[in-house]
Amino acid sequence: MCQLLGMNCNTPTDIVFSFEGFRQRAGITDCHSDGFGIAFFEGKGVRVFRDDKPCSSSPIADCVKQYHIKSLNVIAHIRKATFGAVNLENTHPFIREIWGENWVFAHNGNLTTLPDISQCRAQPIGTTDSETAFCYMAEKLKQKYHRKLSENEIFDSVYEISQELSQLGTFNFILSNGEFMIAHCSTNLHYITRKAPFGKAFRVDDNEVIDFNDYAKPDDRVTIITTFPITKNETWTKMEHGGFVLFKNGIKIREILGIKKDIEDDGTLGNRTY
Amino acid sequence: MCQLLGMNCNTPTDIVFSFEGFRQRAGITDCHSDGFGIAFFEGKGVRVFRDDKPCSSSPIADCVKQYHIKSLNVIAHIRKATFGAVNLENTHPFIREIWGENWVFAHNGNLTTLPDISQCRAQPIGTTDSETAFCYMAEKLKQKYHRKLSENEIFDSVYEISQELSQLGTFNFILSNGEFMIAHCSTNLHYITRKAPFGKAFRVDDNEVIDFNDYAKPDDRVTIITTFPITKNETWTKMEHGGFVLFKNGIKIREILGIKKDIEDDGTLGNRTY
Repeated sequence: MCQLLGMNCNTPTDIVFSFEGFRQRAGITDCHSDGFGIAFFEGKGVRVFRDDKPCSSSPIADCVKQYHIKSLNVIAHIRKATFGAVNLENTHPFIREIWGENWVFAHNGNLTTLPDISQCRAQPIGTTDSETAFCYMAEKLKQKYHRKLSENEIFDSVYEISQELSQLGTFNFILSNGEFMIAHCSTNLHYITRKAPFGKAFRVDDNEVIDFNDYAKPDDRVTIITTFPITKNETWTKMEHGGFVLFKNGIKIREILGIKKDIEDDGTLGNRTY
Repeated sequence: MCQLLGMNCNTPTDIVFSFEGFRQRAGITDCHSDGFGIAFFEGKGVRVFRDDKPCSSSPIADCVKQYHIKSLNVIAHIRKATFGAVNLENTHPFIREIWGENWVFAHNGNLTTLPDISQCRAQPIGTTDSETAFCYMAEKLKQKYHRKLSENEIFDSVYEISQELSQLGTFNFILSNGEFMIAHCSTNLHYITRKAPFGKAFRVDDNEVIDFNDYAKPDDRVTIITTFPITKNETWTKMEHGGFVLFKNGIKIREILGIKKDIEDDGTLGNRTY
């Protein structure tokens, strides 16, 4: 299993506070140590940093910390390999061009059956179930629709494909095209939207504190989406089984509610005491 | 215009000596300051560092210098924008998945006419002529051949597409799928293959010296391909107009010779005194 971290904002924002907590789960506070990746949208372009080393100690992750890159949409992933070897091509997030845009995808969960991609032009480069599922999704979108859909049509189409892929196993994912961010929950996915009045937040993994008043402006809206909450004194929304949300400009725009289920320990929890 | 740098080896090799000379042409010894990118293959995976800042002073390029990443195939590009704004999505190299592989492409030159990609599924994300040409190439390969071709078939097919695109303007490029590297010359492209006995090399841009004996093993083969030679005391081969070469495991495997032409100053030379 793995853990996911996403950020969607209305103003370019630095993800370092969240990322520095998150990366500790890759070898220090948890066991998701089989590589990592983080993608920052900048306009239509994407900066990607990835490594097959544990994110907690990777010099590439140190580089991310050092540069405080600001972005409207960021997706990060720390991996605990269950399907596919530990190597660079199996690190998330995966990226494909769809309708002249970078689409960035990270997945948590195992698909027990793989979708049939034998007739797809989009093919996985690595050997994960996750990349195979993303190729299936990209193919479905590009094959059926030759030009970019409206935001509502994308929401409906991606939801439909997600429902289909969810039949094959656990399918928590975060997806972005740089304009918006979609989150789908099978088992564990939480989000929080921060806006004025801002306060202090304490990280779960090391108790580090930040006062967002020192950084945010009154109109800032920042949503963080993650497998398990990054901070311990804030109220995070736990998504429901089958829940599907579209965030844009830092806030929730559309949502399909799922079904309340007890937390399934799908291995994602690892050895965390939280 | 822009400048290109490629490396193809038979053993994972560090490109820092060449890259540190090359990046000076992005603001110090030359004017290719409108962003840069460098892609390192690692297995089927790719690490990419890119920035819209001048490569000579970019902290992302400092990061590349710091980590001494070793790879069999590397492609780098420093940009002088002539077609498309200065932003991240217009930085080379461009990457597309073809037949379940990362294909990495960097271009130098201007296409005065763009190929027709209106019916292509592969669409550019940025606004450069270069990415449009690469999308055309990727589409031709994927559309015509549903499964990966043999190396010889790829050589012939890419050559055919290159001939077609060369009719549209200046089309110097380097292309790799992580197994081999293809170079096509319209105006300026040079290469050198280093093997035992190794010696010293002096960089053109700052006179820095390296003794390859301190790093190389007797069986090492390393080919460097670049717009203008990186070192001044070695014998570089200048490719001919229309020349097309495939390198693998550090050496030239197949070649189609071009036509000898006087160097055209297509703007690539910039203000270099060399």
